[in-house]
Amino acid sequence: MLGNKIIQCVPNFSEGRNIEKIDRIIDTLRGKDGVKLLDYSSDKDHNRTVVTLVGDPEGLKEAILDFMAEAIDLIDLREHSGQHPRMGAVDVVPFIPIKNVTMDEAILLSHQVAEEAAARFNLPIFLYEKSAAVPARENLAVIRKGEFEGMKDKLLKEEWKPDFGPGSPHESAGVTAIGARMPLVAFNVNLNTPNLQIADAIAKKVRYIGGGLRFCKAMGVTLEDRNITQVSMNMTDYTKTALYRSFELIKVEARRYGVSVVGSEIVGMLPMQALIDCAEYYLGIENFSSDQILENKLME
Amino acid sequence: MLGNKIIQCVPNFSEGRNIEKIDRIIDTLRGKDGVKLLDYSSDKDHNRTVVTLVGDPEGLKEAILDFMAEAIDLIDLREHSGQHPRMGAVDVVPFIPIKNVTMDEAILLSHQVAEEAAARFNLPIFLYEKSAAVPARENLAVIRKGEFEGMKDKLLKEEWKPDFGPGSPHESAGVTAIGARMPLVAFNVNLNTPNLQIADAIAKKVRYIGGGLRFCKAMGVTLEDRNITQVSMNMTDYTKTALYRSFELIKVEARRYGVSVVGSEIVGMLPMQALIDCAEYYLGIENFSSDQILENKLME
Repeated sequence: MLGNKIIQCVPNFSEGRNIEKIDRIIDTLRGKDGVKLLDYSSDKDHNRTVVTLVGDPEGLKEAILDFMAEAIDLIDLREHSGQHPRMGAVDVVPFIPIKNVTMDEAILLSHQVAEEAAARFNLPIFLYEKSAAVPARENLAVIRKGEFEGMKDKLLKEEWKPDFGPGSPHESAGVTAIGARMPLVAFNVNLNTPNLQIADAIAKKVRYIGGGLRFCKAMGVTLEDRNITQVSMNMTDYTKTALYRSFELIKVEARRYGVSVVGSEIVGMLPMQALIDCAEYYLGIENFSSDQILENKLME
Repeated sequence: MLGNKIIQCVPNFSEGRNIEKIDRIIDTLRGKDGVKLLDYSSDKDHNRTVVTLVGDPEGLKEAILDFMAEAIDLIDLREHSGQHPRMGAVDVVPFIPIKNVTMDEAILLSHQVAEEAAARFNLPIFLYEKSAAVPARENLAVIRKGEFEGMKDKLLKEEWKPDFGPGSPHESAGVTAIGARMPLVAFNVNLNTPNLQIADAIAKKVRYIGGGLRFCKAMGVTLEDRNITQVSMNMTDYTKTALYRSFELIKVEARRYGVSVVGSEIVGMLPMQALIDCAEYYLGIENFSSDQILENKLME
Protein backbone atom coordinates (compact mmCIF):
# COMPACT_ATOMS: atom_id res chain seq x y z
CA MET A 1 0.00 0.00 0.00
CA LEU A 2 1.23 3.47 -0.90
CA GLY A 3 1.54 6.15 1.72
CA ASN A 4 0.04 9.62 1.55
CA LYS A 5 3.20 11.35 0.26
CA ILE A 6 4.01 10.23 -3.26
CA ILE A 7 7.29 10.73 -5.06
CA GLN A 8 8.00 9.36 -8.51
CA CYS A 9 11.44 7.96 -9.32
CA VAL A 10 12.73 7.24 -12.84
CA PRO A 11 16.12 5.54 -12.48
CA ASN A 12 18.07 4.68 -15.63
CA PHE A 13 20.53 1.79 -15.58
CA SER A 14 23.07 0.75 -18.19
CA GLU A 15 21.78 -2.64 -19.32
CA GLY A 16 19.22 -3.02 -22.08
CA ARG A 17 20.10 -6.37 -23.65
CA ASN A 18 20.65 -9.10 -21.05
CA ILE A 19 17.12 -9.99 -19.98
CA GLU A 20 18.26 -12.08 -17.06
CA LYS A 21 20.27 -9.24 -15.55
CA ILE A 22 17.46 -6.76 -16.24
CA ASP A 23 14.96 -9.01 -14.48
CA ARG A 24 17.18 -9.43 -11.45
CA ILE A 25 17.65 -5.68 -11.13
CA ILE A 26 13.94 -4.93 -11.60
CA ASP A 27 12.99 -7.64 -9.10
CA THR A 28 14.57 -5.58 -6.30
CA LEU A 29 11.71 -3.09 -6.80
CA ARG A 30 8.86 -5.59 -6.55
CA GLY A 31 6.79 -6.35 -3.46
CA LYS A 32 8.42 -3.58 -1.47
CA ASP A 33 6.36 -1.85 1.18
CA GLY A 34 5.41 1.71 0.23
CA VAL A 35 6.66 1.34 -3.35
CA LYS A 36 4.89 0.54 -6.61
CA LEU A 37 6.67 -0.38 -9.84
CA LEU A 38 4.71 1.27 -12.66
CA ASP A 39 6.73 0.54 -15.78
CA TYR A 40 10.13 -0.28 -17.22
CA SER A 41 11.37 -0.36 -20.78
CA SER A 42 14.69 -1.56 -22.14
CA ASP A 43 16.27 -0.31 -25.36
CA LYS A 44 18.78 -2.60 -27.05
CA ASP A 45 20.37 0.14 -29.18
CA HIS A 46 20.78 2.36 -26.14
CA ASN A 47 21.69 -0.69 -24.03
CA ARG A 48 19.79 0.98 -21.24
CA THR A 49 16.64 0.49 -19.17
CA VAL A 50 14.37 3.23 -17.89
CA VAL A 51 12.25 2.38 -14.83
CA THR A 52 9.25 4.24 -13.44
CA LEU A 53 8.19 3.71 -9.86
CA VAL A 54 6.35 5.65 -7.20
CA GLY A 55 6.41 5.49 -3.46
CA ASP A 56 6.57 7.32 -0.20
CA PRO A 57 9.98 8.78 0.73
CA GLU A 58 10.93 6.05 3.23
CA GLY A 59 9.88 3.16 0.99
CA LEU A 60 11.59 4.65 -2.06
CA LYS A 61 14.84 5.16 -0.18
CA GLU A 62 15.11 1.51 0.83
CA ALA A 63 14.00 0.22 -2.57
CA ILE A 64 16.36 2.40 -4.58
CA LEU A 65 19.35 1.43 -2.45
CA ASP A 66 18.56 -2.29 -2.97
CA PHE A 67 18.09 -1.61 -6.68
CA MET A 68 21.44 0.20 -6.91
CA ALA A 69 23.20 -2.61 -5.07
CA GLU A 70 21.97 -5.17 -7.59
CA ALA A 71 22.72 -3.02 -10.66
CA ILE A 72 26.22 -2.21 -9.42
CA ASP A 73 26.78 -5.89 -8.73
CA LEU A 74 25.64 -7.07 -12.19
CA ILE A 75 26.75 -4.31 -14.57
CA ASP A 76 30.36 -3.72 -15.62
CA LEU A 77 30.67 -0.52 -17.62
CA ARG A 78 34.09 -1.56 -18.87
CA GLU A 79 32.24 -3.98 -21.12
CA HIS A 80 29.30 -1.72 -21.95
CA SER A 81 28.50 -0.08 -25.27
CA GLY A 82 25.34 1.62 -26.49
CA GLN A 83 24.08 4.68 -28.32
CA HIS A 84 22.94 6.55 -25.23
CA PRO A 85 25.57 8.49 -23.28
CA ARG A 86 26.20 7.00 -19.81
CA MET A 87 28.65 7.36 -16.95
CA GLY A 88 27.39 4.79 -14.43
CA ALA A 89 25.92 1.31 -13.99
CA VAL A 90 23.10 3.26 -12.38
CA ASP A 91 23.37 6.30 -14.58
CA VAL A 92 20.86 8.68 -13.13
CA VAL A 93 18.22 8.64 -10.36
CA PRO A 94 15.71 11.51 -10.49
CA PHE A 95 13.11 12.02 -7.74
CA ILE A 96 9.93 13.85 -8.75
CA PRO A 97 7.39 15.23 -6.24
CA ILE A 98 3.87 14.08 -7.19
CA LYS A 99 1.37 14.29 -4.31
CA ASN A 100 1.50 15.95 -0.89
CA VAL A 101 5.25 16.37 -1.30
CA THR A 102 7.21 19.57 -1.77
CA MET A 103 10.24 19.94 -4.01
CA ASP A 104 12.27 20.45 -0.81
CA GLU A 105 11.22 17.01 0.42
CA ALA A 106 12.25 15.45 -2.89
CA ILE A 107 15.59 17.25 -2.66
CA LEU A 108 16.04 15.98 0.90
CA LEU A 109 15.36 12.41 -0.24
CA SER A 110 17.90 12.76 -3.07
CA HIS A 111 20.52 13.92 -0.57
CA GLN A 112 19.78 11.04 1.78
CA VAL A 113 19.97 8.43 -0.97
CA ALA A 114 23.12 10.00 -2.41
CA GLU A 115 24.90 10.03 0.95
CA GLU A 116 23.90 6.48 1.82
CA ALA A 117 24.68 5.07 -1.64
CA ALA A 118 28.09 6.75 -1.74
CA ALA A 119 29.00 5.18 1.60
CA ARG A 120 27.52 1.74 0.89
CA PHE A 121 28.87 1.28 -2.63
CA ASN A 122 31.99 3.45 -2.46
CA LEU A 123 30.50 5.31 -5.41
CA PRO A 124 31.08 8.95 -6.45
CA ILE A 125 27.76 10.80 -6.73
CA PHE A 126 26.83 14.12 -8.28
CA LEU A 127 23.72 15.96 -7.14
CA TYR A 128 21.96 17.44 -10.19
CA GLU A 129 18.91 19.50 -11.22
CA LYS A 130 17.14 21.03 -8.21
CA SER A 131 19.48 19.15 -5.85
CA ALA A 132 22.61 20.65 -7.37
CA ALA A 133 24.84 22.60 -4.98
CA VAL A 134 26.05 24.88 -7.78
CA PRO A 135 24.43 25.96 -11.08
CA ALA A 136 27.16 24.21 -13.12
CA ARG A 137 25.85 20.88 -11.85
CA GLU A 138 22.17 21.42 -12.65
CA ASN A 139 22.40 20.04 -16.19
CA LEU A 140 22.84 16.26 -16.40
CA ALA A 141 24.41 16.42 -19.87
CA VAL A 142 27.16 18.68 -18.56
CA ILE A 143 27.88 16.35 -15.63
CA ARG A 144 27.88 13.29 -17.89
CA LYS A 145 30.14 14.83 -20.53
CA GLY A 146 33.16 12.56 -21.04
CA GLU A 147 31.03 9.55 -20.08
CA PHE A 148 32.29 6.55 -18.12
CA GLU A 149 35.59 6.44 -19.97
CA GLY A 150 36.40 10.07 -19.21
CA MET A 151 35.27 10.22 -15.58
CA LYS A 152 38.61 9.34 -14.03
CA ASP A 153 40.31 12.43 -15.45
CA LYS A 154 37.25 14.62 -15.00
CA LEU A 155 36.94 13.87 -11.28
CA LEU A 156 40.53 14.94 -10.72
CA LYS A 157 39.55 18.51 -11.54
CA GLU A 158 38.68 20.59 -8.48
CA GLU A 159 35.37 21.74 -10.02
CA TRP A 160 34.31 18.12 -10.60
CA LYS A 161 34.89 16.76 -7.13
CA PRO A 162 31.80 14.59 -6.46
CA ASP A 163 29.20 15.78 -3.94
CA PHE A 164 29.42 12.44 -2.12
CA GLY A 165 31.77 9.45 -2.23
CA PRO A 166 35.36 8.93 -3.34
CA GLY A 167 37.32 11.18 -5.69
CA SER A 168 37.68 8.54 -8.38
CA PRO A 169 35.05 6.50 -10.26
CA HIS A 170 33.89 3.08 -9.14
CA GLU A 171 35.96 0.60 -11.17
CA SER A 172 32.99 -1.12 -12.82
CA ALA A 173 30.03 1.08 -11.91
CA GLY A 174 31.43 4.55 -12.67
CA VAL A 175 29.56 7.54 -11.32
CA THR A 176 25.89 8.22 -10.57
CA ALA A 177 23.85 11.41 -10.75
CA ILE A 178 21.02 11.77 -8.22
CA GLY A 179 18.65 14.69 -7.96
CA ALA A 180 15.16 16.08 -7.70
CA ARG A 181 13.27 17.60 -10.61
CA MET A 182 9.78 18.50 -11.74
CA PRO A 183 7.83 15.99 -13.86
CA LEU A 184 8.69 16.21 -17.57
CA VAL A 185 5.81 16.22 -20.03
CA ALA A 186 6.63 15.16 -23.60
CA PHE A 187 4.17 17.20 -25.66
CA ASN A 188 4.32 17.29 -29.46
CA VAL A 189 2.26 19.58 -31.68
CA ASN A 190 1.61 18.57 -35.30
CA LEU A 191 1.78 21.00 -38.23
CA ASN A 192 0.18 20.54 -41.66
CA THR A 193 3.46 21.07 -43.49
CA PRO A 194 6.17 18.61 -44.52
CA ASN A 195 8.68 21.47 -44.34
CA LEU A 196 11.05 20.72 -41.45
CA GLN A 197 12.55 24.20 -41.63
CA ILE A 198 9.22 25.70 -40.67
CA ALA A 199 8.75 23.28 -37.75
CA ASP A 200 12.28 24.09 -36.61
CA ALA A 201 11.78 27.83 -36.93
CA ILE A 202 8.63 27.65 -34.81
CA ALA A 203 10.34 25.39 -32.24
CA LYS A 204 13.16 27.90 -31.87
CA LYS A 205 10.73 30.74 -31.12
CA VAL A 206 8.69 28.81 -28.62
CA ARG A 207 11.56 27.39 -26.61
CA TYR A 208 13.36 29.07 -23.75
CA ILE A 209 16.80 29.38 -25.32
CA GLY A 210 15.29 31.12 -28.34
CA GLY A 211 13.49 33.75 -26.25
CA GLY A 212 10.36 31.68 -25.74
CA LEU A 213 8.71 30.04 -22.78
CA ARG A 214 10.76 29.53 -19.63
CA PHE A 215 10.12 25.79 -19.11
CA CYS A 216 9.95 24.60 -22.71
CA LYS A 217 12.54 22.72 -24.75
CA ALA A 218 11.60 22.22 -28.41
CA MET A 219 12.81 21.01 -31.79
CA GLY A 220 11.35 20.33 -35.21
CA VAL A 221 10.74 16.69 -36.20
CA THR A 222 9.49 15.04 -39.42
CA LEU A 223 6.66 12.47 -39.26
CA GLU A 224 7.54 10.77 -42.53
CA ASP A 225 4.63 8.33 -42.71
CA ARG A 226 2.14 11.19 -42.44
CA ASN A 227 4.14 13.67 -44.54
CA ILE A 228 3.87 16.31 -41.85
CA THR A 229 6.16 17.83 -39.23
CA GLN A 230 5.83 18.49 -35.55
CA VAL A 231 7.20 20.73 -32.85
CA SER A 232 8.47 18.16 -30.35
CA MET A 233 8.65 19.58 -26.82
CA ASN A 234 9.78 18.73 -23.35
CA MET A 235 7.78 20.78 -20.89
CA THR A 236 10.08 20.92 -17.89
CA ASP A 237 7.69 22.52 -15.40
CA TYR A 238 4.03 22.37 -16.41
CA THR A 239 3.03 24.16 -13.20
CA LYS A 240 4.77 27.31 -14.49
CA THR A 241 4.69 26.86 -18.27
CA ALA A 242 1.32 25.24 -18.96
CA LEU A 243 0.81 23.02 -21.99
CA TYR A 244 -1.91 25.26 -23.43
CA ARG A 245 0.51 28.20 -23.45
CA SER A 246 3.01 26.48 -25.73
CA PHE A 247 0.13 25.09 -27.84
CA GLU A 248 -1.37 28.53 -28.38
CA LEU A 249 2.02 30.12 -29.01
CA ILE A 250 2.79 27.54 -31.70
CA LYS A 251 -0.50 28.44 -33.39
CA VAL A 252 0.47 32.10 -33.27
CA GLU A 253 3.91 31.46 -34.78
CA ALA A 254 2.56 29.01 -37.38
CA ARG A 255 0.24 31.67 -38.76
CA ARG A 256 3.03 33.64 -40.42
CA TYR A 257 3.96 30.58 -42.49
CA GLY A 258 0.36 29.91 -43.52
CA VAL A 259 0.66 26.68 -41.55
CA SER A 260 -1.94 25.22 -39.16
CA VAL A 261 -1.79 23.07 -36.06
CA VAL A 262 -3.56 19.80 -36.86
CA GLY A 263 -3.26 17.91 -33.59
CA SER A 264 -0.91 16.98 -30.81
CA GLU A 265 0.30 14.05 -28.77
CA ILE A 266 1.43 13.31 -25.25
CA VAL A 267 4.22 10.75 -25.08
CA GLY A 268 4.36 8.64 -21.93
CA MET A 269 2.86 9.59 -18.61
CA LEU A 270 1.91 12.92 -17.12
CA PRO A 271 0.28 14.13 -13.91
CA MET A 272 -3.45 14.75 -14.34
CA GLN A 273 -3.04 18.35 -13.23
CA ALA A 274 -1.10 19.17 -16.43
CA LEU A 275 -4.30 18.50 -18.41
CA ILE A 276 -6.73 19.80 -15.77
CA ASP A 277 -4.90 23.16 -16.01
CA CYS A 278 -5.65 23.21 -19.75
CA ALA A 279 -9.34 22.38 -19.27
CA GLU A 280 -9.54 25.17 -16.67
CA TYR A 281 -8.03 27.63 -19.12
CA TYR A 282 -10.15 26.74 -22.15
CA LEU A 283 -13.42 26.52 -20.21
CA GLY A 284 -12.57 29.66 -18.24
CA ILE A 285 -13.36 27.92 -14.96
CA GLU A 286 -13.26 30.32 -12.01
CA ASN A 287 -12.16 29.40 -8.47
CA PHE A 288 -11.56 25.74 -9.25
CA SER A 289 -9.89 23.66 -6.56
CA SER A 290 -8.19 20.35 -7.15
CA ASP A 291 -10.18 19.09 -4.13
CA GLN A 292 -13.15 19.05 -6.48
CA ILE A 293 -11.55 16.22 -8.44
CA LEU A 294 -13.02 13.01 -7.08
CA GLU A 295 -9.81 11.06 -7.69
CA ASN A 296 -7.84 13.47 -5.52
CA LYS A 297 -10.24 12.72 -2.67
CA LEU A 298 -9.88 8.99 -3.29
CA MET A 299 -6.10 9.23 -3.01
CA GLU A 300 -6.07 11.38 0.12
CA MET B 1 -8.30 0.57 2.41
CA LEU B 2 -10.43 0.88 -0.70
CA GLY B 3 -10.79 -2.01 -3.10
CA ASN B 4 -10.16 -1.92 -6.82
CA LYS B 5 -13.80 -1.40 -7.80
CA ILE B 6 -15.05 2.00 -6.73
CA ILE B 7 -18.65 3.11 -6.55
CA GLN B 8 -19.73 6.49 -5.24
CA CYS B 9 -22.84 6.80 -3.11
CA VAL B 10 -24.62 10.08 -2.31
CA PRO B 11 -27.40 9.31 0.17
CA ASN B 12 -29.71 12.13 1.29
CA PHE B 13 -31.40 11.94 4.67
CA SER B 14 -34.11 14.15 6.13
CA GLU B 15 -32.35 15.82 9.06
CA GLY B 16 -30.34 19.02 8.65
CA ARG B 17 -30.76 20.72 12.02
CA ASN B 18 -30.18 18.36 14.95
CA ILE B 19 -26.38 18.02 15.03
CA GLU B 20 -26.45 15.17 17.50
CA LYS B 21 -28.70 13.06 15.31
CA ILE B 22 -26.71 13.97 12.18
CA ASP B 23 -23.48 12.92 13.88
CA ARG B 24 -24.90 9.60 14.99
CA ILE B 25 -26.15 8.83 11.48
CA ILE B 26 -22.86 9.87 9.84
CA ASP B 27 -20.85 7.87 12.40
CA THR B 28 -22.24 4.65 10.91
CA LEU B 29 -20.16 5.38 7.80
CA ARG B 30 -16.84 5.91 9.58
CA GLY B 31 -14.11 3.33 10.00
CA LYS B 32 -15.89 0.81 7.79
CA ASP B 33 -13.77 -1.60 5.76
CA GLY B 34 -13.85 -0.83 2.04
CA VAL B 35 -15.65 2.48 2.50
CA LYS B 36 -14.44 6.06 2.68
CA LEU B 37 -16.58 8.99 3.82
CA LEU B 38 -15.63 11.95 1.59
CA ASP B 39 -18.00 14.70 2.59
CA TYR B 40 -21.35 15.60 4.12
CA SER B 41 -23.20 18.86 4.30
CA SER B 42 -26.37 19.74 6.15
CA ASP B 43 -28.79 22.48 5.15
CA LYS B 44 -31.00 23.93 7.88
CA ASP B 45 -33.53 25.44 5.48
CA HIS B 46 -33.83 22.18 3.60
CA ASN B 47 -33.62 20.25 6.89
CA ARG B 48 -31.65 17.68 4.95
CA THR B 49 -28.10 16.27 4.81
CA VAL B 50 -26.28 15.16 1.68
CA VAL B 51 -23.48 12.62 2.18
CA THR B 52 -20.75 11.60 -0.27
CA LEU B 53 -18.92 8.35 0.22
CA VAL B 54 -17.07 5.88 -1.97
CA GLY B 55 -16.34 2.22 -1.57
CA ASP B 56 -16.27 -1.19 -3.14
CA PRO B 57 -19.67 -2.86 -3.68
CA GLU B 58 -19.48 -5.20 -0.67
CA GLY B 59 -18.28 -2.53 1.74
CA LEU B 60 -20.84 0.00 0.54
CA LYS B 61 -23.70 -2.46 0.90
CA GLU B 62 -22.94 -3.14 4.57
CA ALA B 63 -22.27 0.50 5.39
CA ILE B 64 -25.41 1.84 3.70
CA LEU B 65 -27.63 -0.67 5.48
CA ASP B 66 -26.16 0.35 8.86
CA PHE B 67 -26.59 3.99 7.89
CA MET B 68 -30.22 3.45 6.91
CA ALA B 69 -30.93 1.61 10.15
CA GLU B 70 -29.69 4.56 12.22
CA ALA B 71 -31.46 7.21 10.13
CA ILE B 72 -34.76 5.29 10.24
CA ASP B 73 -34.34 4.91 14.00
CA LEU B 74 -33.67 8.60 14.66
CA ILE B 75 -35.81 10.46 12.12
CA ASP B 76 -39.58 10.79 12.36
CA LEU B 77 -40.98 12.37 9.21
CA ARG B 78 -44.27 13.10 10.95
CA GLU B 79 -42.38 15.88 12.75
CA HIS B 80 -40.24 16.97 9.80
CA SER B 81 -40.49 20.20 7.85
CA GLY B 82 -38.10 21.78 5.37
CA GLN B 83 -37.92 23.51 1.99
CA HIS B 84 -36.66 20.48 0.09
CA PRO B 85 -39.22 17.90 -1.06
CA ARG B 86 -38.81 14.55 0.73
CA MET B 87 -40.66 11.28 1.13
CA GLY B 88 -38.40 9.29 3.44
CA ALA B 89 -36.13 9.45 6.50
CA VAL B 90 -33.55 8.19 4.04
CA ASP B 91 -34.93 10.01 1.05
CA VAL B 92 -32.75 8.78 -1.79
CA VAL B 93 -29.68 6.55 -2.22
CA PRO B 94 -27.94 6.83 -5.62
CA PHE B 95 -25.03 4.56 -6.57
CA ILE B 96 -22.59 5.93 -9.16
CA PRO B 97 -19.97 3.79 -10.95
CA ILE B 98 -16.55 5.48 -10.71
CA LYS B 99 -13.63 3.10 -11.31
CA ASN B 100 -13.43 -0.45 -12.72
CA VAL B 101 -17.19 -0.77 -12.27
CA THR B 102 -19.87 -0.96 -14.95
CA MET B 103 -23.29 0.62 -14.72
CA ASP B 104 -24.70 -2.92 -14.56
CA GLU B 105 -22.70 -3.59 -11.39
CA ALA B 106 -24.00 -0.38 -9.82
CA ILE B 107 -27.55 -1.39 -10.76
CA LEU B 108 -27.01 -4.82 -9.23
CA LEU B 109 -25.80 -3.23 -5.99
CA SER B 110 -28.85 -0.94 -5.90
CA HIS B 111 -31.13 -3.97 -6.26
CA GLN B 112 -29.33 -5.86 -3.50
CA VAL B 113 -29.47 -2.92 -1.09
CA ALA B 114 -33.11 -2.24 -1.93
CA GLU B 115 -34.16 -5.84 -1.36
CA GLU B 116 -32.26 -6.17 1.90
CA ALA B 117 -33.37 -2.78 3.26
CA ALA B 118 -37.03 -3.45 2.43
CA ALA B 119 -36.89 -6.72 4.37
CA ARG B 120 -34.87 -5.41 7.32
CA PHE B 121 -36.74 -2.16 7.89
CA ASN B 122 -40.17 -3.10 6.52
CA LEU B 123 -39.74 -0.12 4.20
CA PRO B 124 -41.29 0.42 0.74
CA ILE B 125 -38.59 1.10 -1.85
CA PHE B 126 -38.73 2.45 -5.38
CA LEU B 127 -35.93 1.69 -7.84
CA TYR B 128 -35.19 4.84 -9.87
CA GLU B 129 -32.92 6.19 -12.65
CA LYS B 130 -30.97 3.38 -14.38
CA SER B 131 -32.32 0.85 -11.87
CA ALA B 132 -35.96 1.64 -12.68
CA ALA B 133 -38.05 -1.30 -13.90
CA VAL B 134 -40.26 1.00 -15.99
CA PRO B 135 -39.58 4.41 -17.60
CA ALA B 136 -42.21 6.10 -15.39
CA ARG B 137 -39.97 5.44 -12.37
CA GLU B 138 -36.74 6.82 -13.80
CA ASN B 139 -37.35 10.37 -12.62
CA LEU B 140 -36.96 10.87 -8.87
CA ALA B 141 -39.17 13.99 -8.84
CA VAL B 142 -42.06 11.99 -10.31
CA ILE B 143 -41.66 9.24 -7.70
CA ARG B 144 -41.43 11.76 -4.86
CA LYS B 145 -44.44 13.81 -5.97
CA GLY B 146 -46.93 13.97 -3.08
CA GLU B 147 -44.03 13.72 -0.61
CA PHE B 148 -44.18 11.88 2.73
CA GLU B 149 -47.66 13.14 3.49
CA GLY B 150 -49.11 11.88 0.20
CA MET B 151 -47.37 8.51 0.00
CA LYS B 152 -50.07 6.49 1.75
CA ASP B 153 -52.66 7.27 -0.92
CA LYS B 154 -50.11 7.14 -3.76
CA LEU B 155 -48.94 3.63 -2.89
CA LEU B 156 -52.51 2.35 -3.04
CA LYS B 157 -52.52 2.95 -6.79
CA GLU B 158 -51.54 -0.08 -8.83
CA GLU B 159 -48.91 1.88 -10.82
CA TRP B 160 -47.22 3.01 -7.61
CA LYS B 161 -46.79 -0.36 -5.94
CA PRO B 162 -43.23 -0.26 -4.54
CA ASP B 163 -40.50 -2.39 -6.17
CA PHE B 164 -39.65 -3.87 -2.77
CA GLY B 165 -41.24 -3.87 0.65
CA PRO B 166 -44.77 -3.36 1.95
CA GLY B 167 -47.60 -1.65 0.11
CA SER B 168 -47.90 1.19 2.60
CA PRO B 169 -45.31 3.68 3.85
CA HIS B 170 -43.22 3.14 6.98
CA GLU B 171 -45.03 5.02 9.74
CA SER B 172 -42.14 7.33 10.64
CA ALA B 173 -39.60 6.72 7.81
CA GLY B 174 -41.87 6.88 4.75
CA VAL B 175 -40.48 5.60 1.48
CA THR B 176 -36.97 5.46 0.00
CA ALA B 177 -35.75 5.65 -3.61
CA ILE B 178 -32.63 3.65 -4.48
CA GLY B 179 -30.96 3.52 -7.85
CA ALA B 180 -27.87 3.76 -10.02
CA ARG B 181 -26.95 6.77 -12.13
CA MET B 182 -24.04 8.40 -13.88
CA PRO B 183 -22.05 11.08 -12.03
CA LEU B 184 -23.71 14.50 -12.27
CA VAL B 185 -21.49 17.46 -13.07
CA ALA B 186 -22.83 20.86 -12.03
CA PHE B 187 -21.37 23.18 -14.67
CA ASN B 188 -22.37 26.85 -14.92
CA VAL B 189 -21.37 29.19 -17.72
CA ASN B 190 -21.33 32.94 -17.05
CA LEU B 191 -22.65 35.55 -19.53
CA ASN B 192 -21.79 39.25 -19.60
CA THR B 193 -25.41 40.33 -19.46
CA PRO B 194 -27.70 41.04 -16.50
CA ASN B 195 -30.68 40.06 -18.69
CA LEU B 196 -32.11 36.84 -17.29
CA GLN B 197 -34.34 36.40 -20.33
CA ILE B 198 -31.26 35.99 -22.52
CA ALA B 199 -29.67 33.45 -20.13
CA ASP B 200 -32.94 31.55 -20.04
CA ALA B 201 -33.34 31.60 -23.81
CA ILE B 202 -29.83 30.20 -24.25
CA ALA B 203 -30.41 27.56 -21.55
CA LYS B 204 -33.57 26.41 -23.33
CA LYS B 205 -31.70 25.89 -26.60
CA VAL B 206 -28.79 24.04 -25.06
CA ARG B 207 -30.78 21.64 -22.90
CA TYR B 208 -32.24 18.33 -24.00
CA ILE B 209 -35.92 19.15 -23.59
CA GLY B 210 -35.51 22.24 -25.78
CA GLY B 211 -33.91 20.30 -28.65
CA GLY B 212 -30.37 20.63 -27.33
CA LEU B 213 -27.80 18.23 -25.97
CA ARG B 214 -28.96 14.80 -24.85
CA PHE B 215 -27.43 14.78 -21.35
CA CYS B 216 -27.79 18.44 -20.40
CA LYS B 217 -30.31 20.08 -18.09
CA ALA B 218 -30.11 23.88 -17.99
CA MET B 219 -31.73 27.04 -16.70
CA GLY B 220 -30.93 30.74 -16.55
CA VAL B 221 -29.82 32.18 -13.20
CA THR B 222 -28.98 35.72 -12.03
CA LEU B 223 -25.71 36.40 -10.18
CA GLU B 224 -26.88 39.56 -8.47
CA ASP B 225 -23.65 40.55 -6.77
CA ARG B 226 -21.82 40.50 -10.12
CA ASN B 227 -24.70 41.92 -12.17
CA ILE B 228 -24.43 39.09 -14.67
CA THR B 229 -26.38 35.95 -15.49
CA GLN B 230 -25.39 32.35 -16.02
CA VAL B 231 -26.57 29.24 -17.75
CA SER B 232 -26.68 26.79 -14.86
CA MET B 233 -26.39 23.19 -16.03
CA ASN B 234 -26.53 19.65 -14.76
CA MET B 235 -24.52 17.45 -17.09
CA THR B 236 -26.10 14.06 -16.54
CA ASP B 237 -23.63 11.95 -18.54
CA TYR B 238 -20.32 13.69 -19.29
CA THR B 239 -19.06 10.58 -21.10
CA LYS B 240 -21.64 11.20 -23.82
CA THR B 241 -22.29 14.93 -23.59
CA ALA B 242 -18.89 16.44 -22.82
CA LEU B 243 -18.58 19.71 -20.93
CA TYR B 244 -16.78 21.45 -23.80
CA ARG B 245 -19.72 20.72 -26.10
CA SER B 246 -22.24 22.59 -23.97
CA PHE B 247 -19.68 25.36 -23.38
CA GLU B 248 -19.09 25.87 -27.09
CA LEU B 249 -22.80 25.64 -27.89
CA ILE B 250 -23.57 28.35 -25.33
CA LYS B 251 -20.97 30.58 -27.04
CA VAL B 252 -22.66 29.93 -30.38
CA GLU B 253 -26.13 30.75 -29.04
CA ALA B 254 -24.89 33.79 -27.08
CA ARG B 255 -23.57 35.37 -30.27
CA ARG B 256 -27.00 36.24 -31.63
CA TYR B 257 -27.68 38.35 -28.53
CA GLY B 258 -24.34 40.12 -28.76
CA VAL B 259 -23.50 38.47 -25.46
CA SER B 260 -20.21 36.81 -24.52
CA VAL B 261 -19.21 33.95 -22.26
CA VAL B 262 -17.02 35.39 -19.51
CA GLY B 263 -16.18 32.33 -17.44
CA SER B 264 -17.63 29.25 -15.86
CA GLU B 265 -17.71 27.29 -12.64
CA ILE B 266 -17.86 23.71 -11.50
CA VAL B 267 -19.92 23.21 -8.35
CA GLY B 268 -18.94 20.31 -6.13
CA MET B 269 -16.97 17.30 -7.23
CA LEU B 270 -16.45 15.71 -10.62
CA PRO B 271 -14.45 12.79 -12.01
CA MET B 272 -11.12 13.90 -13.49
CA GLN B 273 -12.03 12.40 -16.85
CA ALA B 274 -14.75 15.04 -17.36
CA LEU B 275 -12.00 17.69 -17.51
CA ILE B 276 -9.37 15.50 -19.20
CA ASP B 277 -11.86 15.04 -22.08
CA CYS B 278 -11.98 18.82 -22.47
CA ALA B 279 -8.19 19.19 -22.48
CA GLU B 280 -7.98 16.44 -25.11
CA TYR B 281 -10.48 18.27 -27.30
CA TYR B 282 -8.95 21.74 -27.03
CA LEU B 283 -5.35 20.58 -27.45
CA GLY B 284 -6.35 18.17 -30.24
CA ILE B 285 -4.49 15.32 -28.56
CA GLU B 286 -4.40 12.19 -30.74
CA ASN B 287 -4.46 8.62 -29.42
CA PHE B 288 -4.48 9.59 -25.78
CA SER B 289 -5.04 6.83 -23.26
CA SER B 290 -6.13 7.34 -19.68
CA ASP B 291 -3.30 4.95 -18.73
CA GLN B 292 -0.99 7.89 -19.46
CA ILE B 293 -2.39 9.72 -16.45
CA LEU B 294 -0.02 9.00 -13.58
CA GLU B 295 -2.83 9.09 -11.01
CA ASN B 296 -4.70 6.33 -12.83
CA LYS B 297 -1.63 4.13 -12.49
CA LEU B 298 -1.38 5.02 -8.81
CA MET B 299 -4.96 3.92 -8.22
CA GLU B 300 -4.73 0.64 -10.17
